[in-house]
Amino acid sequence: MVIGGDGSLTGAHLFFQEFGIPAIGLPGTIDNDLSGTDLTIGFDTACNTAIQAIDKIRDTATSHDRLFFVEVMGRDAGFIAINAGIGSAAAATLIPEKKMPIEKLVDRLKARTKAMKQSNIVIVAEGGKSGGAVEIAEKVQKHLPYFDIKVTILGHLQRGGSPSSFDRVLASKLGVAAVEGLMQGKYDVMAGIINNKIVYTPITKAIVDDKEVDEDDFRIAKILST
Amino acid sequence: MVIGGDGSLTGAHLFFQEFGIPAIGLPGTIDNDLSGTDLTIGFDTACNTAIQAIDKIRDTATSHDRLFFVEVMGRDAGFIAINAGIGSAAAATLIPEKKMPIEKLVDRLKARTKAMKQSNIVIVAEGGKSGGAVEIAEKVQKHLPYFDIKVTILGHLQRGGSPSSFDRVLASKLGVAAVEGLMQGKYDVMAGIINNKIVYTPITKAIVDDKEVDEDDFRIAKILST
Amino acid sequence: MVIGGDGSLTGAHLFFQEFGIPAIGLPGTIDNDLSGTDLTIGFDTACNTAIQAIDKIRDTATSHDRLFFVEVMGRDAGFIAINAGIGSAAAATLIPEKKMPIEKLVDRLKARTKAMKQSNIVIVAEGGKSGGAVEIAEKVQKHLPYFDIKVTILGHLQRGGSPSSFDRVLASKLGVAAVEGLMQGKYDVMAGIINNKIVYTPITKAIVDDKEVDEDDFRIAKILST
Amino acid sequence: MVIGGDGSLTGAHLFFQEFGIPAIGLPGTIDNDLSGTDLTIGFDTACNTAIQAIDKIRDTATSHDRLFFVEVMGRDAGFIAINAGIGSAAAATLIPEKKMPIEKLVDRLKARTKAMKQSNIVIVAEGGKSGGAVEIAEKVQKHLPYFDIKVTILGHLQRGGSPSSFDRVLASKLGVAAVEGLMQGKYDVMAGIINNKIVYTPITKAIVDDKEVDEDDFRIAKILST
Repeated sequence: MVIGGDGSLTGAHLFFQEFGIPAIGLPGTIDNDLSGTDLTIGFDTACNTAIQAIDKIRDTATSHDRLFFVEVMGRDAGFIAINAGIGSAAAATLIPEKKMPIEKLVDRLKARTKAMKQSNIVIVAEGGKSGGAVEIAEKVQKHLPYFDIKVTILGHLQRGGSPSSFDRVLASKLGVAAVEGLMQGKYDVMAGIINNKIVYTPITKAIVDDKEVDEDDFRIAKILST
Repeated sequence: MVIGGDGSLTGAHLFFQEFGIPAIGLPGTIDNDLSGTDLTIGFDTACNTAIQAIDKIRDTATSHDRLFFVEVMGRDAGFIAINAGIGSAAAATLIPEKKMPIEKLVDRLKARTKAMKQSNIVIVAEGGKSGGAVEIAEKVQKHLPYFDIKVTILGHLQRGGSPSSFDRVLASKLGVAAVEGLMQGKYDVMAGIINNKIVYTPITKAIVDDKEVDEDDFRIAKILST
Repeated sequence: MVIGGDGSLTGAHLFFQEFGIPAIGLPGTIDNDLSGTDLTIGFDTACNTAIQAIDKIRDTATSHDRLFFVEVMGRDAGFIAINAGIGSAAAATLIPEKKMPIEKLVDRLKARTKAMKQSNIVIVAEGGKSGGAVEIAEKVQKHLPYFDIKVTILGHLQRGGSPSSFDRVLASKLGVAAVEGLMQGKYDVMAGIINNKIVYTPITKAIVDDKEVDEDDFRIAKILST
Repeated sequence: MVIGGDGSLTGAHLFFQEFGIPAIGLPGTIDNDLSGTDLTIGFDTACNTAIQAIDKIRDTATSHDRLFFVEVMGRDAGFIAINAGIGSAAAATLIPEKKMPIEKLVDRLKARTKAMKQSNIVIVAEGGKSGGAVEIAEKVQKHLPYFDIKVTILGHLQRGGSPSSFDRVLASKLGVAAVEGLMQGKYDVMAGIINNKIVYTPITKAIVDDKEVDEDDFRIAKILST
């Protein structure tokens, strides 16, 4: 049984294909970028860590001319960012999948100032095309020189910590499913949960990663930001 | 828009039926005992609170002759208990839906001692037919006089605290769904999420509460306890 | 080097006295009931655990006719209780050192109701002469039948968890002091910190435990409760 | 009553000096850079936030060729950094008060690698003369190209969050002391606690900030880092 992301699961696949070793995978990555499962093990814990950090930043964010950038993980996938953006009703959420021009971000921040919003926190996924939080903060500062801008980079902080209740239950269910899958001769697959049901997906399919942030999640993040 | 459990939602129903006030409900209860939604708002936060408490207890639980009882909420529904039981790989989980005779519990504890299990934590849902954690602890003590037994009652501690990431996202999605439902003339219903999709269920149906702890969850809790 | 409370330190003392084994003690107990040090290792962590639990209870406590009892540890010493009482501005704090008659407690609760206080949380040290939280709650219920009374027993939850910053720094300093003490031939003593200075106290003196809750702490707890 | 750091206390001083308004100060700053008190209100909470973040980073830090830089607050004062360094047994702690040449830092990291230390976390106070964590990380990377280096910047995360038990008790005691001081005609002073005793210090003296990180704390941080 192999638990991990793309790399580890590819290893499990090769073990089986090249050496015939019976192998089954479990989706273990905070990025949630695996197909064949609604959520990966670790994702919920990382989201909670991000949200708790943002909560602490918000405590000092209630000022009209303060702007905070918080960089969360997600090199190719904005799942943590979009969840954190919704969960904290962020001013904006910048994710790899969708490019937001600086001008548009600046306009939204100006609009929020006019609307007397009490705090301005922008969530940035680390792998965004517009750069990391530090770069974006510098660009925004040029447009909004009177803003007091601060940057927090959560970094590997999101990879650790005690697992959340959800992740423990998910991991327990998938662990049992993996053992039972192996006993039933299900090799070279990844055990996942889709719509509350255990599903076994060929590893080659699971790691293709065509899972995308739900369009409706974008819409909700945007509604909450205005 | 009314957010709450049975009582609050019944109120929303009456407001609409008796006075024609357009009302829509959101499932807000830590007990998860509402139909029409996979999970209720608050449930995940309560599970995390329970798991974090149990983690702290486990730190001093690693001794062969120590036994801890932790009483969690759930008067009629064992959802928090079964999640906590799986998430902490508890020695046993006692829930209202299933009666476990004291003899059976004692046998399992004896078996664990023989198997040299490192800790013994029993989760008890407050409304179990066998009584609360204090009563059960007393009964078990008579069978296992050499055990050092301690009881923790989490109580209303589980009703508070900062909401988890999952609960925030769930509440945000259901909040948007409720507003949009009202705008579309959907009255006297509760907005919920089933299999990742927004679903509107008549309030009268949602509060009937025929949602049951999944048999497979029992099975997994039991596998982990042995 | 022996880290622990009365029992462990007595052991260290006997090892040295009876067998001449060079031994030095460190004060490790959440109860803070050792002389020769302002604070014991573990006490601050336990206080934080208690405070965090009380915070969660307070979230649902804001109601005029609700009353919460929270039982904290401290069989012979009310240090955790008095700290939690001050830190949460509790309605009352019942500790082993001072008996508070039920009538007096009831009077204070009545006075708070009149003063429209928003919440009523009573902290009870487990070893109080008036009984544990459950017993006291029952007695109070008879005097105040219209109150909705709930009890939380934190129990061993307070003994675990990740150590606080303060406890880590304290333990690090005392650890270094213990090693250096041994190297300097300081045996049969306990390393402690009094007024920010390392102090070595004979173990026999440290375990006598004549440390008492500061009268001024009582006074402040009382001021905050009214 | 004015609670705050240099700026706020200077304001209180001016209110009294220029307008005769009776004013008393309380030390409220996470930086701990006020004289007239052992610890300022907020410092302990910030230290706990830093330590909890570092704990999460450590979870993924156990690898011989990984190096983590964590930037904590403290523009002119290394109190948070040195506490976090001791509390996490960091590989090194860089503070404004003491310049550590990059070569010396690199040597220590090499020595730790040789000694097979399980993790390498370097704490950097934001205002250090050698630059922030990002700059130092870049310099170190040139010397140790084979290290996988990651940076976390805690930023304003340290200014928020629920106050620790210690901070609540400290704030409560100082709050009572401030009120009683005012009633006794003590104006233009700051209430603090030194060696567990309430002390009133002229504001002009308190803000001079000649409080320094204890030399012995450096020594302990260094012992723990090797």
